[in-house]
Amino acid sequence: MSVTAAKGFTAAGIAAGIKENGNPDLALVVNNGPRRAAAGVFTANRVKAAPVLWSEQVLKSGQLAAVVLNSGGANACTGPKGFQDTHATAEKAAEVLGVGAGEVAVCSTGLIGVLLPMDKLLPGVGTAAAQLSEHGGEKAALAIKTTDTVHKTSVAGKDGWTVGGMAKGAGMLAPGLATMLVVLTTDADLDTETLDKALRAATKVTFDRVDSDGCMSTNDTVLLLASGASGVTPAYDDFAEAVRQVCDDLGQQLIRDAEGASKDIKVEVVNAATEDDAVEVGRSIARNNLLKCAVHGEDPNWGRVLSAIGTTKAAFEPDRLNVAINGVWVCKNGGVGEDRDKVDMRYREVHIVADLSAGDATATIWTNDLTADYVHENSAYSS
Amino acid sequence: MSVTAAKGFTAAGIAAGIKENGNPDLALVVNNGPRRAAAGVFTANRVKAAPVLWSEQVLKSGQLAAVVLNSGGANACTGPKGFQDTHATAEKAAEVLGVGAGEVAVCSTGLIGVLLPMDKLLPGVGTAAAQLSEHGGEKAALAIKTTDTVHKTSVAGKDGWTVGGMAKGAGMLAPGLATMLVVLTTDADLDTETLDKALRAATKVTFDRVDSDGCMSTNDTVLLLASGASGVTPAYDDFAEAVRQVCDDLGQQLIRDAEGASKDIKVEVVNAATEDDAVEVGRSIARNNLLKCAVHGEDPNWGRVLSAIGTTKAAFEPDRLNVAINGVWVCKNGGVGEDRDKVDMRYREVHIVADLSAGDATATIWTNDLTADYVHENSAYSS
Repeated sequence: MSVTAAKGFTAAGIAAGIKENGNPDLALVVNNGPRRAAAGVFTANRVKAAPVLWSEQVLKSGQLAAVVLNSGGANACTGPKGFQDTHATAEKAAEVLGVGAGEVAVCSTGLIGVLLPMDKLLPGVGTAAAQLSEHGGEKAALAIKTTDTVHKTSVAGKDGWTVGGMAKGAGMLAPGLATMLVVLTTDADLDTETLDKALRAATKVTFDRVDSDGCMSTNDTVLLLASGASGVTPAYDDFAEAVRQVCDDLGQQLIRDAEGASKDIKVEVVNAATEDDAVEVGRSIARNNLLKCAVHGEDPNWGRVLSAIGTTKAAFEPDRLNVAINGVWVCKNGGVGEDRDKVDMRYREVHIVADLSAGDATATIWTNDLTADYVHENSAYSS
Repeated sequence: MSVTAAKGFTAAGIAAGIKENGNPDLALVVNNGPRRAAAGVFTANRVKAAPVLWSEQVLKSGQLAAVVLNSGGANACTGPKGFQDTHATAEKAAEVLGVGAGEVAVCSTGLIGVLLPMDKLLPGVGTAAAQLSEHGGEKAALAIKTTDTVHKTSVAGKDGWTVGGMAKGAGMLAPGLATMLVVLTTDADLDTETLDKALRAATKVTFDRVDSDGCMSTNDTVLLLASGASGVTPAYDDFAEAVRQVCDDLGQQLIRDAEGASKDIKVEVVNAATEDDAVEVGRSIARNNLLKCAVHGEDPNWGRVLSAIGTTKAAFEPDRLNVAINGVWVCKNGGVGEDRDKVDMRYREVHIVADLSAGDATATIWTNDLTADYVHENSAYSS
């Protein structure tokens, strides 16, 4: 159902010829109103792609009429010409849609450091506009894939209003590919401030806690557009929960499609002094290459979990740390716990619980194992 | 020449039976004076192995008579019993050497979370003491190997005094194995304060800048013992430079022996606003899995370098960043520079220069590529 599940939106996905292999590579999402409220969150990387710089700027108005997305090139580290190309893309979409360029966000994904083939992209915007449809959500989701093996969509909502979305990303595993693009749409009748609040609350506990390889993209973008076409203004909590659900679902789909991964690892930190501590510890565990290799080898190597916890500034005493792997408390009080041979790691999902014994805050970070396939995919990509 | 290159030291290395495969696993280094001044630096990991806790404590006196080192077990995350075992090891060495246990440092390396076989280790200390020799440095260096393919030793000095040392570690790549142990000895006649100052200055720019996989060990230890047996008190700068040379040489040997690595990567950050900025940026580049995969694939993927720089807090403007790989400025002013096809990456050493255009500070971090062999070695180790 994707971005056209909510009323008031049309979308299209086409092959514009940006990708040399002829696969779909250009998507267009249009908000037909009556409202055009929008919010967005962007990569924290200080090296930002041209479309991120552009979209951050246009979102300052709190209004978006359309989003143009392309795969086949990230338009990052492309200098003034790259920014001109993004601007031209927005102008072209504005022209064919009859809106202002300042109401058009642009997202790009693919290799860094390469200019986009504008002679293909610009005509493609016109072609996509001609194919806009209330059933175009799936095609749009297909057109933003890079190394994704499947396209990702999700829908939630109730009582006459809907939140839908699409995502591209192979598990946050490839910022070199401008990892993650997400467009969410809703027909709920809400203003920019409400959208912004709900979107930031949702991404903080979903996409921000999906951390496959610790690398941060130059292009990450999550947009939320509201058409108001349902005529319903939901209670904030209901709406925020629906946005969180869609983000969570899409985030899980990213993890499951992570490049080269054979395991999805849920790192749950419990009894932390603060939520920030829990996130810091979870991230440190999730980024530990040695642990990620051990999980790949189905080795319940809790020593590597403790070693990762020990590098953080979180509140804890080493001799009060406990670690469970798939339900077996292999580390108790900082030392040997239950028999590690009891741990069954044959299945794709692996659940690590780190108990800091320092409070009652908790956080969950999702990551993947580190595999030879990850190395192969990422050593061969651009050549 | 190792730890017995300097006068006043004897050493031994034996197979005590701690390793099941019968390889050497116990080393003893003894300072026969006349001085027994010593200094040490230890892992910053807050989860510290029992021998680290012990050795930090005994070093507060600024005096060491001996160091006992074992491979075959890290004695980390082993609780009160693990600490008792370290204490018993120091007591045993003190007894056979006729010194105080408070003058004996202990270092352990191997798997985390496993108690040492004290029924083999303690008799081994006696056996090693009986074999102490002025020519025992090589055997001691052999006995501390874990996944090391070669033993590592180095010597420097002049004008009648010497600094020698030995190291174990497979490129900082395996904190699960309690990565790096280093013992340095000198016959220079110097006090504890001078040793401490020279050692900290040296490790800060050598071992602290060797960062193969971003993981921090529970057992890292670097000790420097001075016998004063040469009767010479060198100028501080000469001595500090000799210590730096030996540390640098041993650090390079660690990188060249890194588990699974096919490339040694020199990350040189130039024109940073401060040395701290240069180190932060260098470390961020050195820890980027995607870049490390690209180097493995001999792909001059400068976009991944910029992406890594962008995650730091260092002072820079994205459009003033320049990157050279093996001498070719593939990125200029934040965008495409010289032809990437000019970059020759066939050889083991790869040199990345990141120019921040923000000042005149510089720092160099050494790392390795990320390979399928790294994954294989670290997913299979403990099983």
